[in-house]
Amino acid sequence: MQRYPLSAKYALVIGSVAIDKVATPDGQSGKVLGGAASYASIACSYFAPTRMVGIVGSDFPEAHLERYRSHNIDLDGLVVDPSGKTFFWSGRYRDNFSGRDTLELGLNVFEKFSPTLPTAYRSTPFVMLGAIQPSLQLHVIDQLLKKPRKPFILADTFDHWITAAPAELAKMMKKVDMLVINEDESLLLTGERNVVNAGALLRKMGPKIVVIKKGANGAALFHTAGYFAIPAYPITKLVDPTGAGDSFAGAIIGYLAALNRTDFSALKRALAYATAVASLTVESFSVDRLSDAGKATIDQRYRTMIDITRF
Amino acid sequence: MQRYPLSAKYALVIGSVAIDKVATPDGQSGKVLGGAASYASIACSYFAPTRMVGIVGSDFPEAHLERYRSHNIDLDGLVVDPSGKTFFWSGRYRDNFSGRDTLELGLNVFEKFSPTLPTAYRSTPFVMLGAIQPSLQLHVIDQLLKKPRKPFILADTFDHWITAAPAELAKMMKKVDMLVINEDESLLLTGERNVVNAGALLRKMGPKIVVIKKGANGAALFHTAGYFAIPAYPITKLVDPTGAGDSFAGAIIGYLAALNRTDFSALKRALAYATAVASLTVESFSVDRLSDAGKATIDQRYRTMIDITRF
Repeated sequence: MQRYPLSAKYALVIGSVAIDKVATPDGQSGKVLGGAASYASIACSYFAPTRMVGIVGSDFPEAHLERYRSHNIDLDGLVVDPSGKTFFWSGRYRDNFSGRDTLELGLNVFEKFSPTLPTAYRSTPFVMLGAIQPSLQLHVIDQLLKKPRKPFILADTFDHWITAAPAELAKMMKKVDMLVINEDESLLLTGERNVVNAGALLRKMGPKIVVIKKGANGAALFHTAGYFAIPAYPITKLVDPTGAGDSFAGAIIGYLAALNRTDFSALKRALAYATAVASLTVESFSVDRLSDAGKATIDQRYRTMIDITRF
Repeated sequence: MQRYPLSAKYALVIGSVAIDKVATPDGQSGKVLGGAASYASIACSYFAPTRMVGIVGSDFPEAHLERYRSHNIDLDGLVVDPSGKTFFWSGRYRDNFSGRDTLELGLNVFEKFSPTLPTAYRSTPFVMLGAIQPSLQLHVIDQLLKKPRKPFILADTFDHWITAAPAELAKMMKKVDMLVINEDESLLLTGERNVVNAGALLRKMGPKIVVIKKGANGAALFHTAGYFAIPAYPITKLVDPTGAGDSFAGAIIGYLAALNRTDFSALKRALAYATAVASLTVESFSVDRLSDAGKATIDQRYRTMIDITRF
């Protein structure tokens, strides 16, 4: 079982839990564990005790629950809805991973997802809102206790909500401390291609901390205290990028919870750890490599990030 | 006049000198100073005493020569050919700087360019070969004295030579110490999209040191001693990217000459300085910002590069 530092606080991850079937230019997965909450929770669990909120159906394999438990993830917030099947996504990555297409989508029980936090979860000091509907993200925020301690909230979103629910997204952004999105989403949300300018615009929309992810080109952090940029971990074999961004964000919230800090210095290191974690995620289908790698491998990649960036 | 460190050796820059006319989505230059040798020599001159080899025609304005001289650039290798006009290039950048098209090209006296090094230049210890024909790059290499000291040679190339003169390019690559090319050229030359793998392949083609430039996404360095990655300087206003890569390479050769070192540590710092220098180049048309900024501004941006990458 993972041992956490003495400073560690609980982290809460809310998002989709899915069964994925993924085809890439080089291969394909069977029906495997997927969903933002799966990737983010497992990543988070390497750093801090993790609580997960999500919904699965009657078909959800016990082995996947075992996988979460092996990471010491608290599943009190994971609803098993016997009336339907688990959210299913099947997709295919295009040549050179230049994009992906959805082949089949079954929302199933996820369609009814209206996250209700177990009482104990309402005072979790570090919270990650996966890229679910902004209205549901707001619904979660409303359930979080602001006293005795205001929670630190990290939110993700994705292109669909930027176009489909802009008003609610704008409202959500005003209520969170940190936004983690990718370059395309940043462009869609701000109209600005220059990442430095986009980061500044996003901060004006609410979150005082913004991270723009650029995949193989690294990530940029925008904070009241300044700007920080980090390259990607130098992977040589991309197997499946699914979940990279989710595990990246999960590692950030976990690392911050572990240190019980959200200052610029802690955030920079969180991005370096997140980069290390995401590099593992893409080296296999599903959560396999992420889950099996272990903390020592993550620490080693973190040290590599120092080595390859310092001059 | 620039003062150089005691360790500084001469650097030699060979390449095109041009009159450019550039249109961008936001504006356009008049007829201005351009050419790889102009950008690279001025960048280089901030770090080490610089010699330039190139050719211009009867129309080349005295003011441009004055510009070089103000940077203490030795012009003994700059041929003024009265029989024709200076190399002229007019181009237009597409929306969002997503590419550029040549509107007008007049090789003029550059067509006859067959660089003959002044005797004193043949023993220059640090040499940058701009992206001229590989056969001319080889012609320059043949003129360099290997004794008492083997020169350190950095070469650039561009997509045209990769497709038009692959055999000569391959021969050239075997004779240089360092190759600096951009991501698209790297893909064209290796067929490999993964930059980490491409760098390894390029090293197998000859140069023991390889830099792959990624524009706004920074650059990667491949060296016998390891891998290094650096993000771009966070510019907020791109005016004209012309010459960014040339000034980047020029700064590298200049910095190495200044230290009289080519080890991994020196190269990492050279990339940080090159990043700082290239960020200035793109903030104006022509060499204006690069030339006017001064060493103190470059040093300041170098320190910013440390600040924004260290964690």
